[in-house]
Amino acid sequence: MSLTDVLSRIDQDLPAATDRLLELLRIPSISTDRAFKADCDAAADWLVADLNGLGVTTEKRPTPGHPMVVGHLDGPGPHLLFYGHYDVQPVDPLDLWDRDPFDPEVQDTPTGRVIRGRGSADDKGQLMTFIEACRAWKAVHGSLPCKLTFFLEGEEESGSPSLVPFMREHADELKTDLALICDTGLFASRVPAITTMLRGLLGEEITITGPSKDLHSGMYGGIAINPVRVLARIIASLHDDAGRVTVPGFYDGVSELPDDLRAQWQGLAFDHARFLNDVGLSHPAGEVDRTPLEMIWSRPTCEVNGIIGGYTGDGFKTVLPSKASAKISFRLVGSQDPLAIREAFRKMVTDMLPPDCSVAFSGHGASEAGVFETTNPAFEAARAALSDEWPDPAAYIGCGGSIPIAGHFQNLLGTTPMLIGFGKDDDQIHSPNEKYDMESFHKGIRSWARILDALTRA
Amino acid sequence: MSLTDVLSRIDQDLPAATDRLLELLRIPSISTDRAFKADCDAAADWLVADLNGLGVTTEKRPTPGHPMVVGHLDGPGPHLLFYGHYDVQPVDPLDLWDRDPFDPEVQDTPTGRVIRGRGSADDKGQLMTFIEACRAWKAVHGSLPCKLTFFLEGEEESGSPSLVPFMREHADELKTDLALICDTGLFASRVPAITTMLRGLLGEEITITGPSKDLHSGMYGGIAINPVRVLARIIASLHDDAGRVTVPGFYDGVSELPDDLRAQWQGLAFDHARFLNDVGLSHPAGEVDRTPLEMIWSRPTCEVNGIIGGYTGDGFKTVLPSKASAKISFRLVGSQDPLAIREAFRKMVTDMLPPDCSVAFSGHGASEAGVFETTNPAFEAARAALSDEWPDPAAYIGCGGSIPIAGHFQNLLGTTPMLIGFGKDDDQIHSPNEKYDMESFHKGIRSWARILDALTRA
Repeated sequence: MSLTDVLSRIDQDLPAATDRLLELLRIPSISTDRAFKADCDAAADWLVADLNGLGVTTEKRPTPGHPMVVGHLDGPGPHLLFYGHYDVQPVDPLDLWDRDPFDPEVQDTPTGRVIRGRGSADDKGQLMTFIEACRAWKAVHGSLPCKLTFFLEGEEESGSPSLVPFMREHADELKTDLALICDTGLFASRVPAITTMLRGLLGEEITITGPSKDLHSGMYGGIAINPVRVLARIIASLHDDAGRVTVPGFYDGVSELPDDLRAQWQGLAFDHARFLNDVGLSHPAGEVDRTPLEMIWSRPTCEVNGIIGGYTGDGFKTVLPSKASAKISFRLVGSQDPLAIREAFRKMVTDMLPPDCSVAFSGHGASEAGVFETTNPAFEAARAALSDEWPDPAAYIGCGGSIPIAGHFQNLLGTTPMLIGFGKDDDQIHSPNEKYDMESFHKGIRSWARILDALTRA
Repeated sequence: MSLTDVLSRIDQDLPAATDRLLELLRIPSISTDRAFKADCDAAADWLVADLNGLGVTTEKRPTPGHPMVVGHLDGPGPHLLFYGHYDVQPVDPLDLWDRDPFDPEVQDTPTGRVIRGRGSADDKGQLMTFIEACRAWKAVHGSLPCKLTFFLEGEEESGSPSLVPFMREHADELKTDLALICDTGLFASRVPAITTMLRGLLGEEITITGPSKDLHSGMYGGIAINPVRVLARIIASLHDDAGRVTVPGFYDGVSELPDDLRAQWQGLAFDHARFLNDVGLSHPAGEVDRTPLEMIWSRPTCEVNGIIGGYTGDGFKTVLPSKASAKISFRLVGSQDPLAIREAFRKMVTDMLPPDCSVAFSGHGASEAGVFETTNPAFEAARAALSDEWPDPAAYIGCGGSIPIAGHFQNLLGTTPMLIGFGKDDDQIHSPNEKYDMESFHKGIRSWARILDALTRA
């Protein structure tokens, strides 16, 4: 029996694999919202049952937040770990969804079949590509090809508060030869990729308080400080006219791209016009002297993810608000120190406060950027396997998003992380109408079968 | 029978008058929110029935929005009009209220008895002071002392969209010798006042759109324009470092205070430290070279009344928002032209937009400031009547809020407006836990009886 048999089995089993994914997508496991705690638990239970059905000894492991799903299977050859996350992003604004985000379905679209629903691409659909590859392998061979550990998280979309403590506590259990992480995308729509450069993430929520209560702007307007104005001034000051972040020391640890990587990226011929056009834009809006790929892969950023203050309902209310708050996040690169930046940011904000204003800070995650070596021969083996499955050869790329787990494997466990995923730029992850292409799902499963074969054949 | 009998009757009837007010306060007539349309109607019906019970021929008169309540009573002497409004402000944030805003009650507090509930001070409690004075007058004298017109509005808290068309259409019906308006306050807590200077109001809602949908800040952060940042920069630019509004031409029509008024205001010994301390502040935050009374009475302002964009729920979501919007209002003085300022503001905002951003504007009311002559002898008569009722003599004062109706009487009908009210600075109008002091209500009713006597005795 050969890889070909496994690939055939994957093709035959695709309808059933899709049904299994739809079942998992129906569980609204939104980790950031306490109202969905039981649903996160249910998603973990679903995965525990599914993995145990594959012969992987799997348990739900408690944390102060949502549980980890950890499974082990003994076997020959290298010891591989697979990481994915079963939690999903919130779904608001709900009115922009074409259907219930948790009533997923397969849809035919002008660009092909898609699986529509929250979590289809991020990350339930992706994590199931690996599990389905294992299922097909087992169906054909009767057993899996190597020693495997599954490590599935339920707090990835809410800053992973339990992750580092759990990994430290269970370091021996989670240390493996290689950590496969499926939470990234293809490069362009059909070019497979191994992501070797990830931005870190620092999240900060700030709430500015002026008056002790909401005031009438007729009575107090002109004499009372307005916290929305204070917050606006702070946000406006976070970038200079060249688009650079003004937090003192922010660029410490940010290096220029090595020449070889710059050359490789130029070779990718990134179509930024199309990338922007997909979302109604046409102008790269980052630092004035940077290329589009640098802006999204190798340069740090500061974004406002949310802002609220005063009256925001229908109509008009002449209130002078007591409070205003914003969620602000920084994407980090190179060796930027998230904790030093947090401190500098907080000092900068505090220094800008006028009299009578106070500020409260709330941190939401702080992860360093990741830059991963590709010297381990497993990388070239996986790259070749991916290149066999897809029309174009696989590339080593950067990724603008943050996948802190990759750094944790490297730094806490000394395990090399390998990031392979099949998402596409138009998957609308974190947005309404998230989808995962059936091609991503199908060829994703086939890709993992090829990679398992490549990594265990050697 | 004399004024003394009317005042006694008022004292005796106070419990019943309070019950009537509580009944009116139970109707949640929030005019800005369509969900409360039937309640606005019910409040109008309540007033129609009450005035008809006093022998005033009263009707609910339709408008494209909420109805006007108009009543007429023929009689001798001068023809007086009374204006108040039966609609109220929204109640959010609801969690800051100590009880249901529409389940009002009389409470004993360390500083005296209060009527607690939305609309108690603004404006249901105030408008009932006049109606109760009429009720007592009629109970004692069998009839009212003069020809009276009642004109009660239901859209004051939502920009009065129907007011000017209605006043124009019914100008002959609403033209009287004097328009009494009860929607202002005392000066300090026990000093009665006639307000002769009012700020105008211009409301603008702006919505800035960047990307066509919410994006993942990992994927697009750094290359896609963020509308919250654009909005923050616009808001931050609306004031210069001296606290002056930067909209071009904004100060056209703003004059310095006449020396006599400046002297009179200095004589009022406004305790701005206490005024600010009541709301947790200590620093006058307006233009650097202005006195506190100028800041709230005679200088124009620009405030942000509300702002929203991106993810504002619990936890964190690394979204790069598609839209951000703000409700911004300007308080106007002197002869500032609201429509010219609206145009200049919109041009300024549009000029600040970076590529790929669009803006939508929505206007919410545009009223000029009012400066009213006090040469009509009715003013000195009313001032004397007020001075008889209260511990301190009555003052002519300014008011930071906007009461556009006053200007409309003057400009559309040629009727002199006289603004007398009994609200206090700590009434928390437009805020949670709004209240009206029992003293304001009781002495307010008595004040109107004295004023009716003074204006009709002559």
